[in-house]
Amino acid sequence: MYDLIAKKKEGLELSTEEIRFMVLEYTNGTIPDYQMSAMTMAICFQGLNKKETLDLTLAMRDSGDCLDLSRIHGLKADKHSTGGVGDKTSLVLAPLIAALGIPVAKMSGRGLGHTGGTIDKLECFPGFSTDLSEERFTRNVNRIKIAIAGQTANLAPADKKLYALRDVTATVDQMSLIASSIMSKKLASGSDIIVLDVKTGLGAFMKDPADAKKLAEIMVEIGTMAGKKMSAVITDMNQPLGNAVGNILEVIEAIESLSGRGPKDFMEVVYALGSRILMLAGDAADEAEAVFKMKQCIASGAAKEKLAEFVEAQGGDPSYVWNPEKFQKADYVIEVPAQNEGYIQKIDAQAVGTACMMLGGGRETKESGIDLSVGIYLNKKTGDYTKKGETTAVVHANEKQKGEAALAAIQKAFCIGREKIQPNDMIQHTIDSASVMNNANSFYI
Amino acid sequence: MYDLIAKKKEGLELSTEEIRFMVLEYTNGTIPDYQMSAMTMAICFQGLNKKETLDLTLAMRDSGDCLDLSRIHGLKADKHSTGGVGDKTSLVLAPLIAALGIPVAKMSGRGLGHTGGTIDKLECFPGFSTDLSEERFTRNVNRIKIAIAGQTANLAPADKKLYALRDVTATVDQMSLIASSIMSKKLASGSDIIVLDVKTGLGAFMKDPADAKKLAEIMVEIGTMAGKKMSAVITDMNQPLGNAVGNILEVIEAIESLSGRGPKDFMEVVYALGSRILMLAGDAADEAEAVFKMKQCIASGAAKEKLAEFVEAQGGDPSYVWNPEKFQKADYVIEVPAQNEGYIQKIDAQAVGTACMMLGGGRETKESGIDLSVGIYLNKKTGDYTKKGETTAVVHANEKQKGEAALAAIQKAFCIGREKIQPNDMIQHTIDSASVMNNANSFYI
Repeated sequence: MYDLIAKKKEGLELSTEEIRFMVLEYTNGTIPDYQMSAMTMAICFQGLNKKETLDLTLAMRDSGDCLDLSRIHGLKADKHSTGGVGDKTSLVLAPLIAALGIPVAKMSGRGLGHTGGTIDKLECFPGFSTDLSEERFTRNVNRIKIAIAGQTANLAPADKKLYALRDVTATVDQMSLIASSIMSKKLASGSDIIVLDVKTGLGAFMKDPADAKKLAEIMVEIGTMAGKKMSAVITDMNQPLGNAVGNILEVIEAIESLSGRGPKDFMEVVYALGSRILMLAGDAADEAEAVFKMKQCIASGAAKEKLAEFVEAQGGDPSYVWNPEKFQKADYVIEVPAQNEGYIQKIDAQAVGTACMMLGGGRETKESGIDLSVGIYLNKKTGDYTKKGETTAVVHANEKQKGEAALAAIQKAFCIGREKIQPNDMIQHTIDSASVMNNANSFYI
Repeated sequence: MYDLIAKKKEGLELSTEEIRFMVLEYTNGTIPDYQMSAMTMAICFQGLNKKETLDLTLAMRDSGDCLDLSRIHGLKADKHSTGGVGDKTSLVLAPLIAALGIPVAKMSGRGLGHTGGTIDKLECFPGFSTDLSEERFTRNVNRIKIAIAGQTANLAPADKKLYALRDVTATVDQMSLIASSIMSKKLASGSDIIVLDVKTGLGAFMKDPADAKKLAEIMVEIGTMAGKKMSAVITDMNQPLGNAVGNILEVIEAIESLSGRGPKDFMEVVYALGSRILMLAGDAADEAEAVFKMKQCIASGAAKEKLAEFVEAQGGDPSYVWNPEKFQKADYVIEVPAQNEGYIQKIDAQAVGTACMMLGGGRETKESGIDLSVGIYLNKKTGDYTKKGETTAVVHANEKQKGEAALAAIQKAFCIGREKIQPNDMIQHTIDSASVMNNANSFYI
């Protein structure tokens, strides 16, 4: 390992065998943390090239279980988002493409952050469980085209260990390390089609759109070289996505979206990602055809029915899909009045996310509980006009004091000014395999 | 610590408080190795500036004991060498300057390497001990101007811990880290005058003369800022220093040198270092005066008498100084014949050192024993003419097989060619406080 650190420090390329050795021996504890952290810091300065990034990804994929989805018929699709505030995309996209006949066989996590993960949101349906046997998981996808299981398999343990180390040694923000971390898990979970939603903007991990594009390109490159059908969409995360932030609030917004009443910005993202999946699956020739099919699927009620069918198949109560007013409500509903008159210049997504967390809607540590009913509903979004005192947002809280703190935070998150303003385009770029495979083999820093 | 790593990774300056915090908390174990190794790797890429390097040195100095030599009269002098093959300089320089009235109160180690350290060499005198009480140490220096003690005090434990970490994470070769490692120990050992012998060439740690000069400048800078009288000499280490390599062989060569029969290259180094000490002590106006005094001191026999006095004061048998033939001899004395006729183009110092180690003359680990009588004596040095079959060197071995392996190695270490060749100048540069204190405050990489 000493020699490998020295080699990378000099800016030289590590061989496939060297990278596999490093990942394997680090995972099993032979290589100590202090050598690995020196290596990751050297990688931050010298980078990894395309081949090394692929090798690292595959070695981490192979450090644990790889799911075998071969008993599921057809091309399985998966979607991954780099994370943002108000991101309930999977709740809409998964039933929508399943309703269009594309199998969704997804492993999902709970995750830390502003709200829970997809599993937490699905568990808003009473009785819903992601604790499926492999048998039932396979049967469900073959029968109704969709199943989501909790992450029970030991996927990419090398990534888990390495990420924890990077997190405490200031070596998180390196393109190849980020890309390989995400892709090792995606490759291990066995889908044929992988579509990535890479967020950019103030509320995203990748603040700079150029960085987001670079990351998306690297991930598409890795996935393609690993034999997957890949695409990535760079989407705006300067303000929260849609209007709802909070678990139950987001589930209700997802149901509304499947009923044809989705917020415009949110649906743009759903359609962009869905189009890539339909096109990669060979079910649409172009974006126009794909969007047409998805809109029709929603208008006919088939997508919403698929959600109900999916919830029921995993033990949940589907009546909530038809009567979302049944969902548990928070005790306090506090309106947030505008402090000025004018146009919403921006809404600080990070601040809204933190407010939701403060209300109890997210987890700080893996052991934290999570309050499903709290959150923030944004009545106004960037570019909207508001009178002074008009309700810009509504805070849903179960503790009055926390609710009032959230109110103050949300008020501060809204920036109101005189200038008319146009929100950013939601879809900033689309990256396909064809557009990245001719890249030179430079080092990604 | 996370924030400090991130700061250094960005190339920013760490404050005095931040560096002290880092060194203190690392030494006491609060900061884990994996964070410190990420930091040292970041330092390898971004460097430390003059202020940071000083802060790091002082923080490491203060991590353990600092010797108080105030009960010793006069300006105490110390000398440090970055290490090379055949380096017995201290054995000659210490009694020489003590004989000239400058107090030498030195802590020394055993060390790993081709031969033992200064203590191992002094222990070639039967009975000699460096196990002195503080009382006796002080008394000896005040009485006879010289005492050398084994390193019992806990000097710069931060450096010990950090060096061990750097050694396994490929972060040894960074100027500020090397300089602070050496200087933290030197500053903790309390002398007023510190003269550094920075070796350069194929047999040295610093192969590149420009690097050696840079390192010397940084160390002189640190020492000066810490209030010491400083000087550094850059000396050649392309071939072994002097003719003897091996503990007893080197002691005998040292005694010969104090008798006025020292090898020319070796004496050049002794005089260069000694001159700096005499000038810094105010005992000589210039190099010519200093060299004159030293030569006189040797010619009069005073320097050799000082060695005998010193050996006796620490329990050793001084008769060996007067009758070096009493020293234990190795069982096998094997002549190394020249394989060609011609001029010695070079002698691979590293290879000669390794051969001495192979014979048992050095330690591989702290626990290894050491054979005092083995070694290599070079009859010929770079630039000398030899006939084919003439003896270029003599191997002293206690095991026949090892002796023959050493013979082959030494034969290979000699490169003989037709060209007449001039050996490198021994003294390549001299660095004084005045010459470095106007340097810009750039980052040392």
